[in-house]
Amino acid sequence: MKINKENIESVNKKVAENHLNQFDFLANSLDQKNIDVDKLVSELSDFQVAIPSWALGAGGTRFGRFSFYGEPSSLEQKIEDVGVIHSLTQTAGAISLHIPWDVPEDYNAIKELAAENDLIFDAVNSNTFQDQKNAKESYKFGSLSNVNKPPREQAIAHNIEVVEIGKKLGSKSLTVWLADGSNFPGQNNFQTALKHTEDSLKEIYKNLPEDWKMFIEYKPYEPNFYSTVIQDWGTSFMLANACGEKAYTLVDLGHHLPNTNIEQIVSTLMLKGKLGGFHFNDSKYGDDDSTVGSVKPYSLFLIFNELVYGMRNNPQNPYPAWMIDASHNVKDPLEDLVQSLEAIQEAYAKALLVNQDELKQAQLNNDVVLAQELLQDAYRTDVRPLLAQARLARGGALNPIQAYRSLDVRRSLIEERGRHTVASGL
Amino acid sequence: MKINKENIESVNKKVAENHLNQFDFLANSLDQKNIDVDKLVSELSDFQVAIPSWALGAGGTRFGRFSFYGEPSSLEQKIEDVGVIHSLTQTAGAISLHIPWDVPEDYNAIKELAAENDLIFDAVNSNTFQDQKNAKESYKFGSLSNVNKPPREQAIAHNIEVVEIGKKLGSKSLTVWLADGSNFPGQNNFQTALKHTEDSLKEIYKNLPEDWKMFIEYKPYEPNFYSTVIQDWGTSFMLANACGEKAYTLVDLGHHLPNTNIEQIVSTLMLKGKLGGFHFNDSKYGDDDSTVGSVKPYSLFLIFNELVYGMRNNPQNPYPAWMIDASHNVKDPLEDLVQSLEAIQEAYAKALLVNQDELKQAQLNNDVVLAQELLQDAYRTDVRPLLAQARLARGGALNPIQAYRSLDVRRSLIEERGRHTVASGL
Amino acid sequence: MKINKENIESVNKKVAENHLNQFDFLANSLDQKNIDVDKLVSELSDFQVAIPSWALGAGGTRFGRFSFYGEPSSLEQKIEDVGVIHSLTQTAGAISLHIPWDVPEDYNAIKELAAENDLIFDAVNSNTFQDQKNAKESYKFGSLSNVNKPPREQAIAHNIEVVEIGKKLGSKSLTVWLADGSNFPGQNNFQTALKHTEDSLKEIYKNLPEDWKMFIEYKPYEPNFYSTVIQDWGTSFMLANACGEKAYTLVDLGHHLPNTNIEQIVSTLMLKGKLGGFHFNDSKYGDDDSTVGSVKPYSLFLIFNELVYGMRNNPQNPYPAWMIDASHNVKDPLEDLVQSLEAIQEAYAKALLVNQDELKQAQLNNDVVLAQELLQDAYRTDVRPLLAQARLARGGALNPIQAYRSLDVRRSLIEERGRHTVASGL
Amino acid sequence: MKINKENIESVNKKVAENHLNQFDFLANSLDQKNIDVDKLVSELSDFQVAIPSWALGAGGTRFGRFSFYGEPSSLEQKIEDVGVIHSLTQTAGAISLHIPWDVPEDYNAIKELAAENDLIFDAVNSNTFQDQKNAKESYKFGSLSNVNKPPREQAIAHNIEVVEIGKKLGSKSLTVWLADGSNFPGQNNFQTALKHTEDSLKEIYKNLPEDWKMFIEYKPYEPNFYSTVIQDWGTSFMLANACGEKAYTLVDLGHHLPNTNIEQIVSTLMLKGKLGGFHFNDSKYGDDDSTVGSVKPYSLFLIFNELVYGMRNNPQNPYPAWMIDASHNVKDPLEDLVQSLEAIQEAYAKALLVNQDELKQAQLNNDVVLAQELLQDAYRTDVRPLLAQARLARGGALNPIQAYRSLDVRRSLIEERGRHTVASGL
Repeated sequence: MKINKENIESVNKKVAENHLNQFDFLANSLDQKNIDVDKLVSELSDFQVAIPSWALGAGGTRFGRFSFYGEPSSLEQKIEDVGVIHSLTQTAGAISLHIPWDVPEDYNAIKELAAENDLIFDAVNSNTFQDQKNAKESYKFGSLSNVNKPPREQAIAHNIEVVEIGKKLGSKSLTVWLADGSNFPGQNNFQTALKHTEDSLKEIYKNLPEDWKMFIEYKPYEPNFYSTVIQDWGTSFMLANACGEKAYTLVDLGHHLPNTNIEQIVSTLMLKGKLGGFHFNDSKYGDDDSTVGSVKPYSLFLIFNELVYGMRNNPQNPYPAWMIDASHNVKDPLEDLVQSLEAIQEAYAKALLVNQDELKQAQLNNDVVLAQELLQDAYRTDVRPLLAQARLARGGALNPIQAYRSLDVRRSLIEERGRHTVASGL
Repeated sequence: MKINKENIESVNKKVAENHLNQFDFLANSLDQKNIDVDKLVSELSDFQVAIPSWALGAGGTRFGRFSFYGEPSSLEQKIEDVGVIHSLTQTAGAISLHIPWDVPEDYNAIKELAAENDLIFDAVNSNTFQDQKNAKESYKFGSLSNVNKPPREQAIAHNIEVVEIGKKLGSKSLTVWLADGSNFPGQNNFQTALKHTEDSLKEIYKNLPEDWKMFIEYKPYEPNFYSTVIQDWGTSFMLANACGEKAYTLVDLGHHLPNTNIEQIVSTLMLKGKLGGFHFNDSKYGDDDSTVGSVKPYSLFLIFNELVYGMRNNPQNPYPAWMIDASHNVKDPLEDLVQSLEAIQEAYAKALLVNQDELKQAQLNNDVVLAQELLQDAYRTDVRPLLAQARLARGGALNPIQAYRSLDVRRSLIEERGRHTVASGL
Repeated sequence: MKINKENIESVNKKVAENHLNQFDFLANSLDQKNIDVDKLVSELSDFQVAIPSWALGAGGTRFGRFSFYGEPSSLEQKIEDVGVIHSLTQTAGAISLHIPWDVPEDYNAIKELAAENDLIFDAVNSNTFQDQKNAKESYKFGSLSNVNKPPREQAIAHNIEVVEIGKKLGSKSLTVWLADGSNFPGQNNFQTALKHTEDSLKEIYKNLPEDWKMFIEYKPYEPNFYSTVIQDWGTSFMLANACGEKAYTLVDLGHHLPNTNIEQIVSTLMLKGKLGGFHFNDSKYGDDDSTVGSVKPYSLFLIFNELVYGMRNNPQNPYPAWMIDASHNVKDPLEDLVQSLEAIQEAYAKALLVNQDELKQAQLNNDVVLAQELLQDAYRTDVRPLLAQARLARGGALNPIQAYRSLDVRRSLIEERGRHTVASGL
Repeated sequence: MKINKENIESVNKKVAENHLNQFDFLANSLDQKNIDVDKLVSELSDFQVAIPSWALGAGGTRFGRFSFYGEPSSLEQKIEDVGVIHSLTQTAGAISLHIPWDVPEDYNAIKELAAENDLIFDAVNSNTFQDQKNAKESYKFGSLSNVNKPPREQAIAHNIEVVEIGKKLGSKSLTVWLADGSNFPGQNNFQTALKHTEDSLKEIYKNLPEDWKMFIEYKPYEPNFYSTVIQDWGTSFMLANACGEKAYTLVDLGHHLPNTNIEQIVSTLMLKGKLGGFHFNDSKYGDDDSTVGSVKPYSLFLIFNELVYGMRNNPQNPYPAWMIDASHNVKDPLEDLVQSLEAIQEAYAKALLVNQDELKQAQLNNDVVLAQELLQDAYRTDVRPLLAQARLARGGALNPIQAYRSLDVRRSLIEERGRHTVASGL
């Protein structure tokens, strides 16, 4: 299944005039505020978010999983799915693989397929939170932090192997999400677990190619319910510093305790040059992995406000790797991802609209009311015409969800693949 | 200090043309979606929110309070302050008094002053969470729930007196916020406290005029840090049912545990005909009493979506009483209230834009993606021109904050009142 | 696998003398405080907690499940497992079945087996949160609350069938845990979902035998991540009242928002005669389903303090049904359940030690310090000798975990069943 | 008011025999487990906790403050109050002053008075969260982080002055609790605020005597409700590292987001040699400042388990400074502090009882059940006889609360001071 430009153009036609009206009016309004609309649209066009290979099938909870049809059952099909999303949105120009779920058999074929779909390979992800069939050592009681050396060594070797696979695909970074921790007080010695983790990460780091980065993810709980070795940004930051300058913290929006001020964490990490990657999703209760922007869009905007600030003012921080990390229990995964991408671009566009000079001035004057007005002025602006224009500029759909439905993509996928396929992964 | 229409008109002039452009374009767009813009603007114009008398001075925390200048030091000045807000926004047509802070000396004069400022008297509020000078009984260990009869009786009598005062002013409802609870396990017998509370409320209810309502507020914690007698909507609802049909639950946005789904509570209460009143504010951590819409504007929209649904579909529920209940530690209180009113109207306008027919159809089809799109389509719309138009229709300011500043209101207030006045209240 | 009395006696012998010393000393101390130790031990002996059939195998999270050996793979083996626990602890004299996981083939044989193990059948549990193979209707978008009638009818019929199965086994109650809700704003109409739920529950209630009870469980989130139809005790209580006097609220400790005062909810429900059942577990973050007492033992004590108070002072409330509802990712499930039972008995024993007369007097005097001292005096007492004595009185083990290990129970189970069995259920 | 040894001895007499019985029996039991009871009692005797000068009067909330009688109104009286507590408990051998509330007039007299009461001066505390009368600059918009230099300089100078005062009294550490932050998105530039804070702290650090430590406290929110500059341990740790080796993180139990695993933070900080000080209190909802151990005693035990582990195994970490930081709205402050001290000693004693060797072995074996049993075995032990013995050894009261009441201390204080004194401070 591949969506060609002609299909998209024909769908766009029906809404083109209305779009043009809306865009012109908005562009004109922004112009009066001395905003460079062309630049803004071009920044939006350039913003690309990786799709993780495991997000293309229906997810589930510990209480079960409901069936969904036409899921990709091979790496090839996963790439095709991301290709579909990228054709429509023009903002999903990368795929992030999960090893061992996505080990290519024929690297060249896979790279060609990705190129055809205009996709590059983003960070590769290791998996030490599950036991693989025939694995010699179990991760039931931890991987990089395990009290015993053999599982630690197996986990280190696995990460190194993931890097090797990534190298063949052109990836430039490794994401380590360490689920290690404990379910009950007393189970773990915190200090031993932390020291083992630091040593293991350093071992992996040693094997990192010169031009690679290592992203260290943190999470307060789940799958462990009493403690997690890398429980917060402070721990991740400390470990990244211990490893070296190619090691960075990765922020996943869902991985925080209730009420955490995430935007402040983002800001601190960028100031210190240590924000390496970002996983987008949304949540109301815990790590709910909901569609980006579906629950707290204003928080997302505030976070983007810090990201934009950091990208402009913190040369010490590399350009972060962007990825969606959401799960889809009751939606078509592709539609869900399109909604997530839209929400990300929306937050980014609004953050770009913030008048940073006036904001700075208001802050210097302690004019709290004005500072709030400035943020809200940007946030309240309806930026959808800008997003559509950015997609249009690259041949994408003006309205991707409508296009996906008009083109009957899911039906085609089911026809090609059959109904009862199951995506590998969670 | 009173703002006259001419002042406002002169300020409006400078932004009138731009407003008209924006409004026309938006009205045209909405028209194409078959939305009756006139009706919408008129619904917005009709929506009036009460200002509590205690919100007009600088607030504080238990760690102290920073000075602010030109605060109102009498009930008359408080009414004038609300008059200023109402002149500018045309959405603050009521004031909610707190007894004993606001007992009028001359009822007729006060009523005339209110009328001159185009204000009515909304719910009156009793205070049994502090000891008043010369009070015979202390509320240190509770008021309506106290283990001893004399403080219970004093608290009941106080509430009845508040009703008497309210009657003289034309109020039609009494709000009971009961701070009673306990700071430590064992301090209270929960059942005794609940039974005393129910009996006390019934006693007050008996003295309620025929055309009055009693609002029972709930709150999980603070000022008590272990338990609160009326800790949640379930308890308030149970007590309201026990009292009778004139008793209702009052929802204050800040009075919920982390992650509570407040919109669902609102919906349930309206279905059961028991949502009496609403206190607006916002919060990130606890009962922060921040400016409405400053932290979670999408949540506010989702709540308004239920309110609009209920107002249309639940004739069993009376029209709720609306009030802001926020506190202002670092902002000019009047500017803060204007920002709150704007956020309320924005959420209301967006909720009115939701296409309820299509939403219902999407729900019947379990089309979760479309249901989300429909809510987001309304939410993403920039409704500010509608709000400005609704204000304009009644003689208000197109941009109230700018108008307040252009007219140098705070300077005038300081000149009239002096710098170091202190508002009565918290 | 069955543990006989002789085995237990031989294990007890080794620690009998030490136990006797400890018990005598404690009994003597309590005696001096005018506590009737015999009565206390007898109350502890009588306290029996049901084991759910699904708690006997290793659990997991949405990220996977690690293997465990010797799990029961049939209803018969599950009953045997509970029999083992009950032999050792003498406090697990009931099993709670989950349909369709545990439908008996031969009812008489099953009843005989249970009787041999000294077990009765507690509440039966229905399952409408998963789709069963060959089910006509899917619960992906809800069961009792579904917008469509056929899945609602299927779910109602399933519950009625569960009652029929329960009748044949001698159960006297049905537990309805309704996972229904929504993952995204807009997905559900809250009022429609609530009304459907109420109607469905009433339909089930109609089919309840005269001497049965229906327990309505509540939960704020998971598996749904935006809203849950029966989200809190207030909703459950409202629905129970709507159904009738045989319908009750069921409290599961893990099903609350952060910081909820659960003991107050328990107290309110007992005052209103509506606390039907109780699910024990513990948690630090969300619904973690950890071993009872492993995280917040003092909270458990405070809850038991209310349960004891209610059982003594609220004749309007029936004797509640007690059940453990925990999950075991890194422990031997049987050992974990033994630890849970110990923690429950400990909290119960400590609550029985609270001097209610003095506590009441302290409360009447608002002597907060003394009230706390009284609770803490009970809580700080080491009641383990009482628990051991209560087990001993019925032929149980003085130290059940040690006995389980001395008797090498798990090895026997693996030998009998093989290593790689998998328990049916979650 | 001073309690002399004879008074205490006479009160002890009445309960001495019972104590001896209890202690002997427990000592004997522990002896059988190869626990060195003498050493344990001596470790308990040596453990001393500072009392903050501001905790001796009734506290309040932002909703008000209820009166309490006989409060200390001078530094002298505060020292006397701590002297009373220390006489009874023998575990409060230090006082922690708050400047400017407690600036001595006559240093020698104050030092003598402290010595008479067997007290030393612990960390001194600066205050930049309130404006002092006649202060030139306001901290309304921040102190060490303020956008303007003059308030920053004033705050730095104040901290240096606090050190000077501390030097004269024999203090050896400065605690900086920085309330700085923002109430609304946009108010602060996070990076600017953090950089100013780092620079200001370094300036203070420069003025620290060679043998002093600086403790940097963190807190997620309150009094600021959107962001706090030093919001978590990660930020404090980063700043302490930036300042130098005499700078440390200070952990206050109440200063964490819901569900935080505090014991893990403690463990990490000790591993890194950066845990400088500790503020004890308890809380159910936010920073409730409740009596230590009144809500979550098991959490306190788990934290002490890490503290004991760190004190034994982390020579890189200095011996931490211990202080209570609680507030008392409905209790006699002195009784409340005695209850807090008892809870601290209890948790410490239980942590000392943990069999660390067996625990380590269980962890190496991944025997999660046994690890939990080992912690619970210690926690379930009734250690009150050990605490009483430790007090007795130094001439304290066997039961301090009872002694306080028998000796009618509060009545004496009221007689000496009058009823309506008000303690300086919050």
